[in-house]
Amino acid sequence: MKPNFRNDYSEIMHPRILARLAEQNLTKRAGYGTDEVCASAAAKLRLKLTRDDADVHFLVGGTSANLIALSAFLRPHEAVICAATAHINVHETGSIEAAGHKLINIETRDGKLTPSLIEQNFARYTDEHMVKPKLVFIANATELGTHYALAELRALRAVCDRLGLLLYMDGARIGSAMAASEVGFADLCCVCDAFYIGGTKNGAPVGEAMVIVNPKLKHDFRYIEKQRGGMLAKGFILGHIFDVLFDCNLYLELAGHANKCADKLRSVLAANGVPLAYETATNQVFAIVPNGKLGRWTDGVICEINERRADETVLRFVTSWATSEEDLRAFEDAVAGI
Amino acid sequence: MKPNFRNDYSEIMHPRILARLAEQNLTKRAGYGTDEVCASAAAKLRLKLTRDDADVHFLVGGTSANLIALSAFLRPHEAVICAATAHINVHETGSIEAAGHKLINIETRDGKLTPSLIEQNFARYTDEHMVKPKLVFIANATELGTHYALAELRALRAVCDRLGLLLYMDGARIGSAMAASEVGFADLCCVCDAFYIGGTKNGAPVGEAMVIVNPKLKHDFRYIEKQRGGMLAKGFILGHIFDVLFDCNLYLELAGHANKCADKLRSVLAANGVPLAYETATNQVFAIVPNGKLGRWTDGVICEINERRADETVLRFVTSWATSEEDLRAFEDAVAGI
Amino acid sequence: MKPNFRNDYSEIMHPRILARLAEQNLTKRAGYGTDEVCASAAAKLRLKLTRDDADVHFLVGGTSANLIALSAFLRPHEAVICAATAHINVHETGSIEAAGHKLINIETRDGKLTPSLIEQNFARYTDEHMVKPKLVFIANATELGTHYALAELRALRAVCDRLGLLLYMDGARIGSAMAASEVGFADLCCVCDAFYIGGTKNGAPVGEAMVIVNPKLKHDFRYIEKQRGGMLAKGFILGHIFDVLFDCNLYLELAGHANKCADKLRSVLAANGVPLAYETATNQVFAIVPNGKLGRWTDGVICEINERRADETVLRFVTSWATSEEDLRAFEDAVAGI
Amino acid sequence: MKPNFRNDYSEIMHPRILARLAEQNLTKRAGYGTDEVCASAAAKLRLKLTRDDADVHFLVGGTSANLIALSAFLRPHEAVICAATAHINVHETGSIEAAGHKLINIETRDGKLTPSLIEQNFARYTDEHMVKPKLVFIANATELGTHYALAELRALRAVCDRLGLLLYMDGARIGSAMAASEVGFADLCCVCDAFYIGGTKNGAPVGEAMVIVNPKLKHDFRYIEKQRGGMLAKGFILGHIFDVLFDCNLYLELAGHANKCADKLRSVLAANGVPLAYETATNQVFAIVPNGKLGRWTDGVICEINERRADETVLRFVTSWATSEEDLRAFEDAVAGI
Repeated sequence: MKPNFRNDYSEIMHPRILARLAEQNLTKRAGYGTDEVCASAAAKLRLKLTRDDADVHFLVGGTSANLIALSAFLRPHEAVICAATAHINVHETGSIEAAGHKLINIETRDGKLTPSLIEQNFARYTDEHMVKPKLVFIANATELGTHYALAELRALRAVCDRLGLLLYMDGARIGSAMAASEVGFADLCCVCDAFYIGGTKNGAPVGEAMVIVNPKLKHDFRYIEKQRGGMLAKGFILGHIFDVLFDCNLYLELAGHANKCADKLRSVLAANGVPLAYETATNQVFAIVPNGKLGRWTDGVICEINERRADETVLRFVTSWATSEEDLRAFEDAVAGI
Repeated sequence: MKPNFRNDYSEIMHPRILARLAEQNLTKRAGYGTDEVCASAAAKLRLKLTRDDADVHFLVGGTSANLIALSAFLRPHEAVICAATAHINVHETGSIEAAGHKLINIETRDGKLTPSLIEQNFARYTDEHMVKPKLVFIANATELGTHYALAELRALRAVCDRLGLLLYMDGARIGSAMAASEVGFADLCCVCDAFYIGGTKNGAPVGEAMVIVNPKLKHDFRYIEKQRGGMLAKGFILGHIFDVLFDCNLYLELAGHANKCADKLRSVLAANGVPLAYETATNQVFAIVPNGKLGRWTDGVICEINERRADETVLRFVTSWATSEEDLRAFEDAVAGI
Repeated sequence: MKPNFRNDYSEIMHPRILARLAEQNLTKRAGYGTDEVCASAAAKLRLKLTRDDADVHFLVGGTSANLIALSAFLRPHEAVICAATAHINVHETGSIEAAGHKLINIETRDGKLTPSLIEQNFARYTDEHMVKPKLVFIANATELGTHYALAELRALRAVCDRLGLLLYMDGARIGSAMAASEVGFADLCCVCDAFYIGGTKNGAPVGEAMVIVNPKLKHDFRYIEKQRGGMLAKGFILGHIFDVLFDCNLYLELAGHANKCADKLRSVLAANGVPLAYETATNQVFAIVPNGKLGRWTDGVICEINERRADETVLRFVTSWATSEEDLRAFEDAVAGI
Repeated sequence: MKPNFRNDYSEIMHPRILARLAEQNLTKRAGYGTDEVCASAAAKLRLKLTRDDADVHFLVGGTSANLIALSAFLRPHEAVICAATAHINVHETGSIEAAGHKLINIETRDGKLTPSLIEQNFARYTDEHMVKPKLVFIANATELGTHYALAELRALRAVCDRLGLLLYMDGARIGSAMAASEVGFADLCCVCDAFYIGGTKNGAPVGEAMVIVNPKLKHDFRYIEKQRGGMLAKGFILGHIFDVLFDCNLYLELAGHANKCADKLRSVLAANGVPLAYETATNQVFAIVPNGKLGRWTDGVICEINERRADETVLRFVTSWATSEEDLRAFEDAVAGI
């Protein structure tokens, strides 16, 4: 079978989540996340984050989570600073604009914002004829597989404090970023005003856990969650999912496994002289292949085309908690054969 | 244990859906509903609906489904005619207004719109200083447990045709409505421009199947679905869910079971002289209890308070596919004891 | 010529405003309301209002003013309580909903809200599945020509304080309301969080002066004004207009004249036995005429049809600063002849 | 007195417009643009445009006009292609995003879009995870004072036809662009689906005339106009304004005068060795001055700072219908003295 590295959301769910759902399947619980399982999972997260006072909300998916958060946090004229490659800028069908907010998107080398990029762009917005930059959106890991070092995150926090900006992190792949760096759960709360811990791309069937640290952003969040269609009737399912993912470090174990598998891909590509488009240590690998060989690559491995250039193509390979030894061996064989 | 008739989304999922997910758990599939399971489930639905040309989209939840549909179907100045008790008017935190559209809400006796109510209200909107009524929203079953007879639905269709209005049906409990009436799947397509078949309240962990019949409403629907945060990454889960629910008539069997259980509640209440607030044949039962006895009722049975009146209270009891003989016996005992 | 009582915005502008514009026509000034004329007009208003700290913004028209204010003051899930007859509910094409906010509209006897109506409706909004009432919208004078006594306004203020609601007043016809009551400019600031003083219906060619009293509502208002298309490039025109209107009490003189003319209409109607639909002391008069005589009325007087009932019709007659003795005599003759 | 070239909306109105308003001041007319003056002015425009079937709507200002048009023409997922320097992208406080639409902004050399820029950007939007480019927004003259030749406009029309895009023109300074080129009124209708003819920057106190050529875009436009707060109660004022502006070619005469005055500025600057940032033939002139001399420039001439660079500053000088010989002489003297 052709090795499949299309993405990290190709299987239904981690077996331990499935086991939990099976075990609890017929237990009756209250709806909309007001049940004890959600309460207990939220408490477990707060413990992990070492922030008793953080608000935790279990949401359905990433686009929905970003849309709800930014709708809740911003007034109509307040804008979002993000990388040009940001998921909200490219791949969420204008959901933030549909909620009324302009994105100020910035070209970057590797998908990462820097204090100076933020400062330069912030400085261009000077009066009421222009939108008012209010929130910095980063993804960690980024859409290009890169991740932020702790010092980089702290520098972003500092510039946001200086400029009066909020810092929000899309953590769809925060597990992979954390497993690839020294950033711990407690750091996230020190650095961000709000962020979400992604479930879908790390073993969950659905689900992202929004964490709000800044007290000014907490008020009435559930209203916005409901209004934007993001409050699941059977919210206890999300509670079960995160309760399992945060049991005994499973969340970071799964992400660490994905990263190790990606390391293997990286070494296979290096061994075969295939250059990488971005230097990554997370579960996404971007390889540059000549257009003349593109057909052989896509015949050999299931993956996504990330970018088409004049003479070459950037392919994206993604590993996950479910990537197996067989997958890796098949990849090695396929690449060798190309 | 106290009998629990709080709602029809208290358990995780029907065991046959769980079995399917377990069986298919590690099969890799393409994301966002572009997989074969979604295709096959959609085909199965179209067959059931006897409409080869209907568009079927699997969405996550009811509020989200309504929001996506109405956003997709309406221009900014076009308004929605609905009952004052409509879920979109009362219990979706203004999601339709947040998408920019006014609701023209109409007082009704039993949660049901009629041609004359529609005509009277439509006639009040005469020029560009007012919104333009464009879409009639009905729920079937309604939020008060009542349902539409086929003749009633056809009369609504006729008035919509006469006035140039779209007819949209919120089918969160369409199974229960169909099991209680002569309305078949093919009828839905003849009557509605679009509707959704609810999964969450009939055995699914998540999921509603949007059906678009009117060709003018189909264009670019997936863009709106994505923009509003309603496109699940692991869309194949929804495919599996509806593939199971529409296997061998399971969907209507589950709804029929819920209705029969509600019949039992109705007969228990009648036997104990407890009056009903609305005459229903679906899985929702609304009982009127004197305020003096309210504590004994809520001590005895888990249910929701639907309405507080001066001297009495309306309690809502909801049955489901998961309601058991024990639940019904416990209800009978509890009511007898009050 | 047929007497014309269609509305109070039928002429271009009061001659004193025209004289000012002619005199200042070629003076170059800075744009967007940042000029000295706007500053001086705002200062003059603040003096009149006896509130040094009130923010004053000159806006173009009523619908625009309401839209800007409510967009600026409310978060997405926050709703507006208003009379069912409110202009924003009926005659602004759903502009507030298009900005994302639900209107909770309340049936009234005479277009006026009362503390108990507000309390009853407020109490129905209990959790995050519903919108959150946040702002009470009143018009003074109302759309039915009635006005609030000072005690009534104070009672509204008290109930808003009790419930944590903002009180906003649409003052399109505030001049007429003030000329008909003991309410003074200083009272408006004590009672309202924000309100606008209408120019268009009291002699101005365009223009309404938004006054924001509550400091929490002032922040970044000009951003919203610009974003919603309500910031006039030649803002100094609005400055001139209000500078003239608030010169030597002209504003209330014009409104007082309109009211006196309306008194005359009222006495003519009474003398001819024509009943009124609402008891008014402002510049709007609503007469009930039998449908059999409708043609003779509309042949005789230019006016608007306010409401069509089974056997009778409500006609609206509006006087203005421009109503002349001839108009009144012509009205008297016309009515006598019907 | 210091010569003032800040902008083209510094005076109240052209004297002929003032004369008309004075003459018609007390004539009673119907509201909201339903009067005979608006009808006659629209007819006059249609004649000038040689398009009997064009819809003409008189709106208040530019931001409002753009907002109304794009709200009326686009579905929620449809995006706007524009230059990065476009007024809607920079100076309208995110009004288009506030109406829900993403702007795809493109870096240009001179503020002008080209077919290849449009094609390249269009090609990047490939599926429903991204917005759908639907409308090309150009300003003519552009925000950098450049203008489109007729051949360029026709090439834009052709690429729009090829790609299924609408072409919309912001004509705030269309008079100046036309006076500087061979583009005639009839050409505008051949090239654009819709556009507006700017009044504010060419002698009007307020007012822009929206022209809709494409029949598919005409439906219910007045609803959107009202909903967005852009329908003036005293619409007949706008009718008078455009009736005067389009009397005997006044509109283009005024613009031609402004252009000639700008020619004089250009020759003065050239004579003094001051380089221009953009080559323009319209009423905007962008001069590059060294930062060391910036103070002397702003002491000598009233103008706007357009761009601050490391060592130099771009100043913008704008002429208008009201620019006098004295202004030009004073400019010449001031520049000579720097």
